[in-house]
Amino acid sequence: MKVLLTLAYDGTNYAGWQSQQNAVSVQDTVGAALTKLYGFTVDVLGASRTDAGVHALGQRAAFTVPDELQKIPISRIPYALNTFLPPDITAVAAESVDDVFHPIFGAKRKTYRYKIWNSDYPNPLERRYTHWVREKLDIPSMQEATRAFIGTHDFAGFCSVGSHAKTTVRTIYDLNVTADSPLINITVTGGGFLYNMVRIIAGTLILVGRHKIQAADMPKIIASTDRSKAGPTAPASGLTLLEIIY
Amino acid sequence: MKVLLTLAYDGTNYAGWQSQQNAVSVQDTVGAALTKLYGFTVDVLGASRTDAGVHALGQRAAFTVPDELQKIPISRIPYALNTFLPPDITAVAAESVDDVFHPIFGAKRKTYRYKIWNSDYPNPLERRYTHWVREKLDIPSMQEATRAFIGTHDFAGFCSVGSHAKTTVRTIYDLNVTADSPLINITVTGGGFLYNMVRIIAGTLILVGRHKIQAADMPKIIASTDRSKAGPTAPASGLTLLEIIY
Repeated sequence: MKVLLTLAYDGTNYAGWQSQQNAVSVQDTVGAALTKLYGFTVDVLGASRTDAGVHALGQRAAFTVPDELQKIPISRIPYALNTFLPPDITAVAAESVDDVFHPIFGAKRKTYRYKIWNSDYPNPLERRYTHWVREKLDIPSMQEATRAFIGTHDFAGFCSVGSHAKTTVRTIYDLNVTADSPLINITVTGGGFLYNMVRIIAGTLILVGRHKIQAADMPKIIASTDRSKAGPTAPASGLTLLEIIY
Repeated sequence: MKVLLTLAYDGTNYAGWQSQQNAVSVQDTVGAALTKLYGFTVDVLGASRTDAGVHALGQRAAFTVPDELQKIPISRIPYALNTFLPPDITAVAAESVDDVFHPIFGAKRKTYRYKIWNSDYPNPLERRYTHWVREKLDIPSMQEATRAFIGTHDFAGFCSVGSHAKTTVRTIYDLNVTADSPLINITVTGGGFLYNMVRIIAGTLILVGRHKIQAADMPKIIASTDRSKAGPTAPASGLTLLEIIY
């Protein structure tokens, strides 16, 4: 039987989702907890390879156990699994899926949120889950700049080196900037994202908010497919994977 | 010159505000940062002795430096001090006060917030700053129960042993329960609080929300001055000192 988990985690103390040698990953931690729960080795495959320090409220991950060894009712799996997980990772749902289901290729839409603490001083209670920007950001300009991203574009300029993507064309369905001062949320929904794409979009919108880039220039910047025209990769702490839709 | 600081901190990794042997306190950490900033030993006196694990957004603390050695403009002190503070403590304001000013005895009102994450599953991104309660809480009952606390009462039943207070009579000006599901905020303003008083109020209101205590019985429970009639001391993680008014 194949099971699809929904996971939430505080990525601060992890080297990202993906299993790595000599570093603690979320994938290995969840795999180790499943292995303890079932009593035999269970590997887990995540939908998104979140980077070191990136958080999740709606990561998805699938694992397979032989039918005769799946003795825990599906709805009880999160509760049982959480007893073997550290407090910074929580399973919040589990459902059974077809054997052909693939958590990465089956994903239709993903939503990420980038959170900014825009204030003279950092807030120690927000520091793990936001990026502190001291300079006052111009929200209406950031909102205006979002429009250029919507739709299907070649986002090669919004991709870090090290990506192995076959194509840099991606579709963004929705991109919003909302403010609940001093918090600013950038929320983006797309069919999929290139390596560091959401953090580069956030870094670029922050430059728009600081008037270092004009909102009106955004279509040109995207069309240039030139990484150096876009803003810097914003820090991992502000990013949270909110939802994956299949 | 006497300086009054406003401090924010994540109390998770501290043994509380108060200086202690063999444990890291916020007071010692701020004192060490001031000592580095000024180049001579500076002691700091806090307005509230927040317990281990309790957070603050508006703690106040005073220190004195000889006038001739106070060379930093008052408004720059927070920025300068923050360069010597760890990321989980931030100075957010500084003002000069009279030499006779006393941060503890001068305080007229203090406001605390107790934050509950009321959901089937804990949220790893909220765990440091909330108390997770799985059982669905009845908010209207909790709100009804708050009324009995308003005013001047003998709160001996809402005080942990170990308190050295001369009197257990205290005045509560305001006590509110608000919900932004699954978050519940208990906000309380008083002239001062007994040892663990806010956490015992929170623990009692949680029992009301679970229908283990009836809201209508609250006046009797307070009047009994019997610690065993009130609820348990809710965990430190949910508590944040919001504001102190002089």
